[in-house]
Amino acid sequence: INSKLPNIETSIFAKMSKMAADQKALNLSQGFPNFPSDPALNALVDEAMREGFNQYAPMPGDFGLRMEISKKIEKLHNHFYNPETEITITAGATQAIFTIIAAAINKGDEVIIFTPAYDCYAPTVELFGGNIVPIQLKPPFYNVDWQKVEDKISSKTKMIIINSPHNPSGMLFSEEDMLQLQDLAEKNNLLVLSDEVYEHIIFDGEVHQSASKFEALAKRSFITASFGKTFHNTGWKTGYCAAPENLMKEFQKVHQFVVFCVNHPIQKALATYLKHEKNYLKIPDFYQQKRDLFLHLLRRSNFKIIPSKGTYFQMLDFSEISKESDIAFAERLTKEMKIATIPTSVFNEGKSDFKQIRVCFAKTDETLINAAKILNSI
Amino acid sequence: INSKLPNIETSIFAKMSKMAADQKALNLSQGFPNFPSDPALNALVDEAMREGFNQYAPMPGDFGLRMEISKKIEKLHNHFYNPETEITITAGATQAIFTIIAAAINKGDEVIIFTPAYDCYAPTVELFGGNIVPIQLKPPFYNVDWQKVEDKISSKTKMIIINSPHNPSGMLFSEEDMLQLQDLAEKNNLLVLSDEVYEHIIFDGEVHQSASKFEALAKRSFITASFGKTFHNTGWKTGYCAAPENLMKEFQKVHQFVVFCVNHPIQKALATYLKHEKNYLKIPDFYQQKRDLFLHLLRRSNFKIIPSKGTYFQMLDFSEISKESDIAFAERLTKEMKIATIPTSVFNEGKSDFKQIRVCFAKTDETLINAAKILNSI
Ligand SMILES: CSCCC(=O)C(=O)O
Ligand SMILES: CSCCC(=O)C(=O)O
Repeated sequence: INSKLPNIETSIFAKMSKMAADQKALNLSQGFPNFPSDPALNALVDEAMREGFNQYAPMPGDFGLRMEISKKIEKLHNHFYNPETEITITAGATQAIFTIIAAAINKGDEVIIFTPAYDCYAPTVELFGGNIVPIQLKPPFYNVDWQKVEDKISSKTKMIIINSPHNPSGMLFSEEDMLQLQDLAEKNNLLVLSDEVYEHIIFDGEVHQSASKFEALAKRSFITASFGKTFHNTGWKTGYCAAPENLMKEFQKVHQFVVFCVNHPIQKALATYLKHEKNYLKIPDFYQQKRDLFLHLLRRSNFKIIPSKGTYFQMLDFSEISKESDIAFAERLTKEMKIATIPTSVFNEGKSDFKQIRVCFAKTDETLINAAKILNSI
Repeated sequence: INSKLPNIETSIFAKMSKMAADQKALNLSQGFPNFPSDPALNALVDEAMREGFNQYAPMPGDFGLRMEISKKIEKLHNHFYNPETEITITAGATQAIFTIIAAAINKGDEVIIFTPAYDCYAPTVELFGGNIVPIQLKPPFYNVDWQKVEDKISSKTKMIIINSPHNPSGMLFSEEDMLQLQDLAEKNNLLVLSDEVYEHIIFDGEVHQSASKFEALAKRSFITASFGKTFHNTGWKTGYCAAPENLMKEFQKVHQFVVFCVNHPIQKALATYLKHEKNYLKIPDFYQQKRDLFLHLLRRSNFKIIPSKGTYFQMLDFSEISKESDIAFAERLTKEMKIATIPTSVFNEGKSDFKQIRVCFAKTDETLINAAKILNSI
């Protein structure tokens, strides 16, 4: 068997989480909350199991859940996706991203990504014979230079992958960014994969600029989002993909052979839970408190910090603390200081090291207080 | 967007289940039980959620569950898979099958399948540029002629996909079949994908011949199985893949980008549930009672019936009842007789019509009694 992904090793998330466990270190590396999934939501899953929703869900997902997603997107972004034909429930956003790329990318197609980039885009594109064209964003603000993007577009460019709020930088795309993207996508007939998994984790009154909000962009975009990120249960592995019917049709052709369908009791539970808008409308405040507390605790630290605008991640610049590589620094912190973080060079083009480590602040206040004590001593 | 799967339409399972619902027909088409998942198992899922296992599982799966699977296979088939490196939990067997093919099949590779075949093999192979080489099995016994298989092997053959107990025919591979397969696979350096999702649904004291039982075969096989089929919760979407370390390494490289990991509370629950061997050892008897009842009720029907040896499906030969195509016959039965079945020509090479419809008997005794009344009147 010849490896289809010869350069792939264990992901940095698995690696740092394992090191955290081995070293009994505080784990702020892999992105997941250490506080509970809402007991009311758990109870809805239990109820669905007891009511007997334990057999296959419909292939595109429970219709009630698709309805609620459609309503939510219409309410927040003023765009209507037909729940019958334009929304599919997925086994997490990762499965949506995989399936979008599987459905759309052919051998030789070029796909533009912005680095630092979440680690599943490039290998998935590679698996289907596509070529990644990375555009490096730089600290401290990780802004996109759209002229540079235009320069990278060729006749082979098939898709641009965006991710706002952006993991790992905490950067947001502005309305202006989205308009520039829309313009380029239209002019060059490109598809867009908009990874919006942190859509509800956004600070300081900023607004999430969903690709669905921009009419011409929505027509050529696959949007993906994650219930696990929004509702503190990353281990339930549910998310969704929304796209116009012509794109969704191709998505579903592949989806049915990737997983056929997704956990049924969880879908039933989410359909009920999403009916109460408060359940997602309260998320930004919840995380604002976390971010603000964390930044406050770190106000005298030796790290250089640009406040995260979205996601549950904060970048810490250690350039004034150490000359080590970010990987060496993060490993040393885990082993000696008992705090695990993510070195972000692994997400950059050519693994460029900007001396930035990422911490996850989706943690109890107590954990954040303990983490800050350690980080302040560095 | 050019379709990667231009010939794919809605699956026959979705189509017949929808027709059953629209026509208010008894649904014996799509394969799923209409009796409950064990309340004790549901309660374990609830417990896992309440205990807080709601974040990402390890990428290969919960270690406790992998241990129990390893023990089960060793007990039943006398082969040891290292739970650390040779077992991965998947979002159902479909995701395992997809990932196996994704990891192993390159453009131009030939993959031998036996038709009638479950409908996900061929499109998945096609998606990765492979070519399907079908070998048609014929009623009434659907036996394999291994000479014919040998004749179909070329220098491009990369993999043979087997499925025993066999859906839709209810046929089993004998020990002799497996030895022939092992021989051919070794001589021609082939991979084997052994779809064993009905491993525990087997009748009349016959023994499941797992690919893991045959030492040289196990070395070149990916095995997949399904908890949903075994424990009556097809909607939970959990299964696993077992393979030797060198193959599993490539499987996991792809798996991490397909779904990253699988529902955590369900994995925790299954790890506990599998500790009690009785929970799976009692399954054959449970289904033997179903099959025997169903055959008894149909003993005077006009269908020609060869008893199913495994799976929860029974083939009904209607050649002495009607000259219609199996699709027309199945549609008429749904609309006029209010019973939905699966026409099996869709699974055959060139859609050959052997006048066989498939019924699912994973149903309550009451449903089977009602179904038999209708079927006996045809
Ligand atoms: C799938 S593990 C990675 C979790 C995550 O989204 C992150 O840490 O960025
Ligand atoms: C995934 S729907 C098909 C269910 C099934 O396994 C069958 O009916 O054969």
